[in-house]
Amino acid sequence: MKRPLVALLTDFGTEDGYVAAMKGRIKSIAPNADIIDISHHIAPFNIRQGAFCLNTCYPYFPDKSIFVAVVDPGVGTARRGVVVKSSKHYFVGPDNGLFSFVCYREGCQTFEIQHDGFDHPVSSTFHGRDVFAPVAAWIAKGQDVEPHLKAVESPESFIRPIRKISRNEFLTEVLHIDHFGNIILGLHIDEWQSMEIDALPTVEFGSVKLSGLVQTFGEVQKGQLCLMWDSSGFLQIANYMDSAAAGLNAAVGDDIRIIL
Amino acid sequence: MKRPLVALLTDFGTEDGYVAAMKGRIKSIAPNADIIDISHHIAPFNIRQGAFCLNTCYPYFPDKSIFVAVVDPGVGTARRGVVVKSSKHYFVGPDNGLFSFVCYREGCQTFEIQHDGFDHPVSSTFHGRDVFAPVAAWIAKGQDVEPHLKAVESPESFIRPIRKISRNEFLTEVLHIDHFGNIILGLHIDEWQSMEIDALPTVEFGSVKLSGLVQTFGEVQKGQLCLMWDSSGFLQIANYMDSAAAGLNAAVGDDIRIIL
Amino acid sequence: MKRPLVALLTDFGTEDGYVAAMKGRIKSIAPNADIIDISHHIAPFNIRQGAFCLNTCYPYFPDKSIFVAVVDPGVGTARRGVVVKSSKHYFVGPDNGLFSFVCYREGCQTFEIQHDGFDHPVSSTFHGRDVFAPVAAWIAKGQDVEPHLKAVESPESFIRPIRKISRNEFLTEVLHIDHFGNIILGLHIDEWQSMEIDALPTVEFGSVKLSGLVQTFGEVQKGQLCLMWDSSGFLQIANYMDSAAAGLNAAVGDDIRIIL
Repeated sequence: MKRPLVALLTDFGTEDGYVAAMKGRIKSIAPNADIIDISHHIAPFNIRQGAFCLNTCYPYFPDKSIFVAVVDPGVGTARRGVVVKSSKHYFVGPDNGLFSFVCYREGCQTFEIQHDGFDHPVSSTFHGRDVFAPVAAWIAKGQDVEPHLKAVESPESFIRPIRKISRNEFLTEVLHIDHFGNIILGLHIDEWQSMEIDALPTVEFGSVKLSGLVQTFGEVQKGQLCLMWDSSGFLQIANYMDSAAAGLNAAVGDDIRIIL
Repeated sequence: MKRPLVALLTDFGTEDGYVAAMKGRIKSIAPNADIIDISHHIAPFNIRQGAFCLNTCYPYFPDKSIFVAVVDPGVGTARRGVVVKSSKHYFVGPDNGLFSFVCYREGCQTFEIQHDGFDHPVSSTFHGRDVFAPVAAWIAKGQDVEPHLKAVESPESFIRPIRKISRNEFLTEVLHIDHFGNIILGLHIDEWQSMEIDALPTVEFGSVKLSGLVQTFGEVQKGQLCLMWDSSGFLQIANYMDSAAAGLNAAVGDDIRIIL
Repeated sequence: MKRPLVALLTDFGTEDGYVAAMKGRIKSIAPNADIIDISHHIAPFNIRQGAFCLNTCYPYFPDKSIFVAVVDPGVGTARRGVVVKSSKHYFVGPDNGLFSFVCYREGCQTFEIQHDGFDHPVSSTFHGRDVFAPVAAWIAKGQDVEPHLKAVESPESFIRPIRKISRNEFLTEVLHIDHFGNIILGLHIDEWQSMEIDALPTVEFGSVKLSGLVQTFGEVQKGQLCLMWDSSGFLQIANYMDSAAAGLNAAVGDDIRIIL
């Protein structure tokens, strides 16, 4: 029999016992669950980084996987806790934009989690352990969570499509900088293809202009900047075996011009 | 059938193969075991941090979970290796205070591990792999470990209850500083309640005085210091969305005054 | 029934979703697999560190364990992807020296992975997710991977045995510096014993000479340099409860003289 899969993403770091408290809670409720670590090194409170990280991996997980994502600066305030259902997966966490990509890419339903009726105390500072982990574990176990859920209309999202700023210019932004220093831009290959533009894009960042897409690192030299679609379909500025971000002094949120 | 759960805590870091060697050993002996990472980023040799981390998570784990904790500056010296049994859990590791909180909070029995009779060589520098992992795996597997164990009376502990220093003043210390910079103090809500004091505590650290407990971060502004019971029941000085420890220049072991 | 074990080693870090994408792929193909993290904190592109890390742990894993190791600066170039079979284990990853120790220590067969016939697209920058994870998962599942494999003669290796430089002097190098600052040298106890030399080695590094092996840290004082066989059988320079590497300013690849 297939074991339910619960995947965890947090900004808790790994020097405290917080992540393990969530794991313990999940295994106490759903002993049969397989727990998979996605990341616990999202920068503290960095919702956008968490959302991007989740977006990089969730499509590869099996059907019925349950994702618990906790980057939660608003814990203890009025922000909602939610369960997001796509056609394949469940996502559990705060409603603060963490699930922006998922909701943008998939037809999703979002439900607010009601705390009343929980059979354990809910702390005001650790909903990862006291709300999101148990709700995920109940789903993993096949328990009916409907009594705790209330449909909501418009979950939080920070996704902004690329903007046309002149006849042949678009504006996007640095979406993410990864571990290798690749600069990932807010232009997805699907969006680009739907625009039916023949010309290859030229990307302008500060005084640097890059044009011409490369397919593999085999086409460039070490230390040479290049433009390529990344392994998730986003346009990226890479520097083979070096950090493009360090070389260009790029930061998440920086404006990027796409020129035809 | 429920799989046995073995949870690991070390100060080994994650850039070497040491943690994985322990995991390999456990899976070789108890192929059915579920291995859960608690933390491998305890600061090298920091027994108190390891003990605190374990304390933050162990209560949430299912019955019969087996914890292997290895922060072991004394490996290769006369320090004992032990198995600690509480009514619910097993703890395996060096007897150097790592299990202080567990023994303080629960009725525990402690047993020294005898190396003779092991069916593999025991290195002098890596008891995590050669002693603690196999003992945990044998327990996970349901094997009789009694022949390797000898009851001991007084395991090492560093717990010090808060001290009364005048009619209305108590002294405690900074027990831990977490990933978010929260300053966790050595006063637990259970200890406080058992003192049956009506007044809310005032906490003094250096020139800073804090009084009045808040329940949630919703009550404070970003950058504002506040006093609250943490999610494990310890009194903490927090700074909403900022590091209280960095702001106050606090370190583990610092004295803290509690004033009525 | 025993679940197949897939162990992962990468230089991907843990702040991105890359590792999790591999895990998702593996669980999608082989839902029954147990996934074990070895390390994701190999320094970017540091093949030698990855190889050493793998060497520290693989011997302790159960028979039929499958190791996926991805430190892959050559992704997208002509470098081969390989499956290495020892008598006990499978190793899947790029053919760039990552499996040097395994091939040196065990009788291994090496097979190149042919991409054609994969049932999903293969990106040019992420073979961890698109090639190595699925091949490992197919093996885990018991699927026939032969159609994708082609025997190769001489896999890449960087192992260099110690060199005799005079009648009573040998040259080796710093193989690895671990989390605790231990300096691990390229001399294995098996190699030493096969040389049938009676004298204990003296090790010379810069102006420091060390002689006399200690068995345990119990024999030395805190802050005292000593020479010992490490827990994997390599000669190491250690400093009890301190970093030998920081004290001696040692780096991987530094020359070390062994004098009889």
